[in-house]
Amino acid sequence: MAEHIYPHKHRVARETKEKLLGQKSRVLWFTGLSGSGKSTVANATEYALNNMGVKTYILDGDNIRAGLNKDLGFSPEDRKENIRRITEVSKLFVDSGILALTAFISPYREDRDVAREILGKDFIEVFVKADLSVCEARDPKGLYKKARAGEIKGFTGIDAPYEEPTKPELVIETDRFGINECADQVISYLAEQNIIDKKLII
Amino acid sequence: MAEHIYPHKHRVARETKEKLLGQKSRVLWFTGLSGSGKSTVANATEYALNNMGVKTYILDGDNIRAGLNKDLGFSPEDRKENIRRITEVSKLFVDSGILALTAFISPYREDRDVAREILGKDFIEVFVKADLSVCEARDPKGLYKKARAGEIKGFTGIDAPYEEPTKPELVIETDRFGINECADQVISYLAEQNIIDKKLII
Repeated sequence: MAEHIYPHKHRVARETKEKLLGQKSRVLWFTGLSGSGKSTVANATEYALNNMGVKTYILDGDNIRAGLNKDLGFSPEDRKENIRRITEVSKLFVDSGILALTAFISPYREDRDVAREILGKDFIEVFVKADLSVCEARDPKGLYKKARAGEIKGFTGIDAPYEEPTKPELVIETDRFGINECADQVISYLAEQNIIDKKLII
Repeated sequence: MAEHIYPHKHRVARETKEKLLGQKSRVLWFTGLSGSGKSTVANATEYALNNMGVKTYILDGDNIRAGLNKDLGFSPEDRKENIRRITEVSKLFVDSGILALTAFISPYREDRDVAREILGKDFIEVFVKADLSVCEARDPKGLYKKARAGEIKGFTGIDAPYEEPTKPELVIETDRFGINECADQVISYLAEQNIIDKKLII
């Protein structure tokens, strides 16, 4: 009895968890400039998916930078480590059966390629595209203004690069479409790929 | 339209996610010596909970040490950072509505107290108790043998301390009870605390 305790470690498989949750899990990786609308589109997509009964979780600056990655700054090395940890956490969510959405600038192609490598077929790169001038005009957090004034160094799009995805699964143009249209485009993609059931879309 | 994209960031709240999943989320924090049966009891508990329809996820060495925390060793500082990250990740799972189970030695009281502080009422400390001699006799991974031979330094219970919990929510004695009995004890606790529905227990 008690001495048998260690050899029997039966792990519940991802497939069983997906079945229990009644869905397929993936990672929707939103990438784009500050102010492009990554987090907003991710939240609108999550809201719509939840209404369809799809269980999701968003990883973004709000819950990652204040917790898990609060020891990291914005140097290239720290950005790399930031993305690595987010990738590994999103992998855990996928393994739990939850559809994960990540919303980070993730400016370097190399870092996103590492994410793609680690996550394999679960990785769905969503390029949230808006012209820099549009993002700067929106400037939701006043960061572009500070970057232009030199108060923030290494700001993506101003004095640090944003490397556009070369082959993203999806491009969402937030300077052409409204929030709900953008979310609908993401959801249509998931349905086309049979990740969510087409019948769920009303 | 498009210019309205940034101010509308509606986040789906934890309560909504718990409702969607039809459950309450918490963290079952299994702590104990190597070979005490933490991971085994956690897996048996998860299996039983899944059969009741409760959605769970286990964080343990298998998925954390090989991924998120592969940059960390076993020095006191690295153990501290290991536990900090696990705490933050389990907080994300709780926030997603999933019941998380963590199975790590987590030998330092101070580190577990930090976990308790960060997780608040969601933290359920489960002391997986077995006499060192029993754990050493089991030695599932042959690590005690290596530690006794001096091939591993800083091994908990041999030449590094294990600080027993002073006020754990639950004590599970794996040298007295079989695996399923141990899992039942955890599940009974969850039912008593109204975290899972008593009616789910057959």
